Amino acid sequence: MTETPTIPSFKDIQIAHARISGQVHRTPVLRSSGINEMTGAQAFFKCENFQKVGAFKYRGAVNAVLSLTDDQAAHGVATHSSGNHAAALALAARSRNIKCYVAMPETAPRSKAEAVKHYGAEITFCKPTLQSREETLNWIVQQTGASFIHPYDNFNVICGQGTAAKEFLEDEAGLDILLVPVGGGGLLSGSAIAAKAMKPGIRVYGCEPLNADDACRSFQSGKIIPSLNPKTVADGLLTSLSERTFSIIMKNVENILTVPESSIISAMRLIWQRMKIIIEPSSAVPVAVMLDNREKFEGKSVGIILSGGNCDLSNLPFHE
Amino acid sequence: MTETPTIPSFKDIQIAHARISGQVHRTPVLRSSGINEMTGAQAFFKCENFQKVGAFKYRGAVNAVLSLTDDQAAHGVATHSSGNHAAALALAARSRNIKCYVAMPETAPRSKAEAVKHYGAEITFCKPTLQSREETLNWIVQQTGASFIHPYDNFNVICGQGTAAKEFLEDEAGLDILLVPVGGGGLLSGSAIAAKAMKPGIRVYGCEPLNADDACRSFQSGKIIPSLNPKTVADGLLTSLSERTFSIIMKNVENILTVPESSIISAMRLIWQRMKIIIEPSSAVPVAVMLDNREKFEGKSVGIILSGGNCDLSNLPFHE
Repeated sequence: MTETPTIPSFKDIQIAHARISGQVHRTPVLRSSGINEMTGAQAFFKCENFQKVGAFKYRGAVNAVLSLTDDQAAHGVATHSSGNHAAALALAARSRNIKCYVAMPETAPRSKAEAVKHYGAEITFCKPTLQSREETLNWIVQQTGASFIHPYDNFNVICGQGTAAKEFLEDEAGLDILLVPVGGGGLLSGSAIAAKAMKPGIRVYGCEPLNADDACRSFQSGKIIPSLNPKTVADGLLTSLSERTFSIIMKNVENILTVPESSIISAMRLIWQRMKIIIEPSSAVPVAVMLDNREKFEGKSVGIILSGGNCDLSNLPFHE
Repeated sequence: MTETPTIPSFKDIQIAHARISGQVHRTPVLRSSGINEMTGAQAFFKCENFQKVGAFKYRGAVNAVLSLTDDQAAHGVATHSSGNHAAALALAARSRNIKCYVAMPETAPRSKAEAVKHYGAEITFCKPTLQSREETLNWIVQQTGASFIHPYDNFNVICGQGTAAKEFLEDEAGLDILLVPVGGGGLLSGSAIAAKAMKPGIRVYGCEPLNADDACRSFQSGKIIPSLNPKTVADGLLTSLSERTFSIIMKNVENILTVPESSIISAMRLIWQRMKIIIEPSSAVPVAVMLDNREKFEGKSVGIILSGGNCDLSNLPFHE
């Protein structure tokens, strides 16, 4: 089941983009004069919160599903996730009319399970441990012959995620800097490959919660240091880098910048209030990086990928 | 201080649009395949939540400010409001570099007063009664010579508000129906004049909270019946029709449809969750009308003006 950790080239991202462009939304790039005034930068926001299933994850999932041979596709796809990847894979599978199996911890929020079911996936609940998750997934794959689509450590997923940055630079060729949230590193890897190929002078930063700073510590030490039970409001960024995403990031990314929880929540609130769009806490991480590091970005054209907009509206982190 | 209640023509709205088009955002029209599936209609959303100050009110305010002679403008503008009109007038005045005075009840939320101050207006607090508000406003006008810009019972304000529907029908000529929230009737009046002139067969409905249904009762009885102390989550729709807006509505509007509070909150939540955009409760009223009257709108192209996006994020109406 392990895959040789091949590294995508920009050509692979171009092929992925041609493959999925009829299936994904070409999301808009928005601006805010108020935020430009606050930061002294020219900020551009790539709105993947408006993507199908409300997150960039659909790009990678649909690219992985469309890359399967008909024989592979006949057995379906499987993953373990309690978040946006599971919903994305479920919808991508439905769009090819194939089965999707998800191993999900029994502690996952009911709303997440409902979303995945809504898209027609079959859920197998497991204990909320890595071991139980992997055992359950292995069991599913053995029973069904489904192809395991890892949330980020997967060649086709990384290629799909890179298409957001490709569109971004096609629409805004003047960007000096690209800020991208980093959890497992799928979006950051794909974005960095695309951006550096299209504009070698661009600086790409990974943006990470201080409370889940494995990418930062790994980047600084030159070896992977996984996060142990990280806790952050940015619940899309709890995962740790893989060998593949780490090697891509080491080669193509300028630095990893971290922000505390309070900055993430303030940045999220600012985007909601000023731009009237809904972003999830993980998307607020690069916004917080821009707000907390004015000197670094002042006078620059800064592109930010707003990675998703899925929030539990009954349990928001805003308090007076 | 009273004005002859002249009725704008579509030509007046066209002139207003030419006057303000460099000052207002031409807001986008968004769609949602999920909501189309739910309703069986083709819904189009004109996003005035993305307008300056987060609401359509900026259109009318800036048109009123730009319509002043230089002599009038030198004395500034004044209004009484605790809502979006005050913020809109303050920003419009600042854009012409003139003074803005606002009589505001001392009970208004601090965030509203802050927003108005942020745009540079001078606030005079008064008691939260109609009498105190009018006395305070009269005093301001006498002291300063400022022009009173009524939130909706004003020729130039109605012309400005009508420009949103004009843009909407320019962008989406196929609309069968237009749904517009109604409070004092400025937006509904302007929208109906523009829409019926551009497409005589279009049906325009006013959409109102059941808990503040003065427009509905006035429309049915043929005479103005003001609301007495209405209470609704749609706090932009508490005001009652004026003679002028009532006469325009009687002539150009198909009917006034009402919805209960629970439908307004559900509709607001649906837009937030599916479209990832922030709308205020008043904007959710026409959405709720569409959802609650499936048989009326099925198979039709339905245009909805999302009037604004200003919410107190610390006090949202969503509960599990």
